[in-house]
Amino acid sequence: MRDAYHEELDSIGEGLVEMARLVGSAIGRATTAILDADLKLAESVIAADQKVDDLQHELEARAIALLARQQPVATDLRIVVTSLRMSADLERAGDLAQHVAKLARLRFPERGVPHDLHATILEMGQLAQRLMAKAAEVVITKDVDLALQLEQDDDDMDLLHRTLFQHLLDDRWKHGIETAVDVTLLGRYYERFADHAVSVAKRVVYLVTGEHADEIQADIHPATGAEGV
Amino acid sequence: MRDAYHEELDSIGEGLVEMARLVGSAIGRATTAILDADLKLAESVIAADQKVDDLQHELEARAIALLARQQPVATDLRIVVTSLRMSADLERAGDLAQHVAKLARLRFPERGVPHDLHATILEMGQLAQRLMAKAAEVVITKDVDLALQLEQDDDDMDLLHRTLFQHLLDDRWKHGIETAVDVTLLGRYYERFADHAVSVAKRVVYLVTGEHADEIQADIHPATGAEGV
Repeated sequence: MRDAYHEELDSIGEGLVEMARLVGSAIGRATTAILDADLKLAESVIAADQKVDDLQHELEARAIALLARQQPVATDLRIVVTSLRMSADLERAGDLAQHVAKLARLRFPERGVPHDLHATILEMGQLAQRLMAKAAEVVITKDVDLALQLEQDDDDMDLLHRTLFQHLLDDRWKHGIETAVDVTLLGRYYERFADHAVSVAKRVVYLVTGEHADEIQADIHPATGAEGV
Repeated sequence: MRDAYHEELDSIGEGLVEMARLVGSAIGRATTAILDADLKLAESVIAADQKVDDLQHELEARAIALLARQQPVATDLRIVVTSLRMSADLERAGDLAQHVAKLARLRFPERGVPHDLHATILEMGQLAQRLMAKAAEVVITKDVDLALQLEQDDDDMDLLHRTLFQHLLDDRWKHGIETAVDVTLLGRYYERFADHAVSVAKRVVYLVTGEHADEIQADIHPATGAEGV
């Protein structure tokens, strides 16, 4: 019976990795869609989010069934509860990728991002995708060092986000208000997407060490104190 | 033993109501802080979010302890798992109230919101606070009709959000880019805050009826199809 249990637990883990792969791909494709004004690609990202939502519901149902049937305690219980939270993070990250794609669709046939911000948005999209790929790897490997690395990558995302704001608030901004609104929302979507990837990794750290990632991190380097609004 | 169990379950419910009251108050006070450029009030909202976070951690720990000790099945299990999700919604809503307060602090001694948007932001803040008060009431009463009403209120929030965008994209906008960025983010914070309140209410519906609120809602009136980016 315990073996069937651990098989089921492993398969929930595989489902989480599958979700992370789907949303990582979605943010990459959504970024391409908005940078290239590719309507078809945007539509495909929007449609594909349903699969992420379905997977989340399926994983949740299986986690709850597992709780009911096997009544795990201690670490096993913590793993199941944590998997519920991770699937919520990943579902939300999928929504954010979909938001980027919807913005691409709304602005089509225009490009949603002005030329001088193309490189920054591309970098944010790529970093978001890498963060999610690493989060998936952390789920597979339970590698605490890799998980902590994600927080450093997230600092890079914050830097990119700040670069975006510097462009927006530069007196030479010439793209008007509508584009400023779009870029503000885009920045927020990428930043939140990254937060969810980091959150997934942090939850693995908590499972492995019993300590919250922030506590471990604090031993390595003091908090920067930087904080976005 | 079952009585101690239901007492513990009730007390988790009370904790959720307490969280909802704290974050409802926080969004109201944060709105006042940004409209009146009241730095002290903003600081108090920012500081008070710690209590919301602490409550969430405490409720989570108690929910997990309850799962381990009592190993509930069926409805009882669903209630405990759902309470975990509600506390996550409420914690996130608290963050969003804190974001509004941080924006107030960032812009101090200026007011964060221009005069002609004062009324709209005030209405969004008040609606957000009412939504959260109703969500708390739904948690207490398990009133499915009231829960469905929250979705209508959320439509009002979407309308206000659209009004905000109309102002932003009006050719006569004269408040510059920085304020446009602030207003864009503010709109997003209130809209997301409302989403979390609705989400709490929907989870109660699911507990009571076993059906997702969307399915019940679809019987009452067809979906509007309206969707923000």
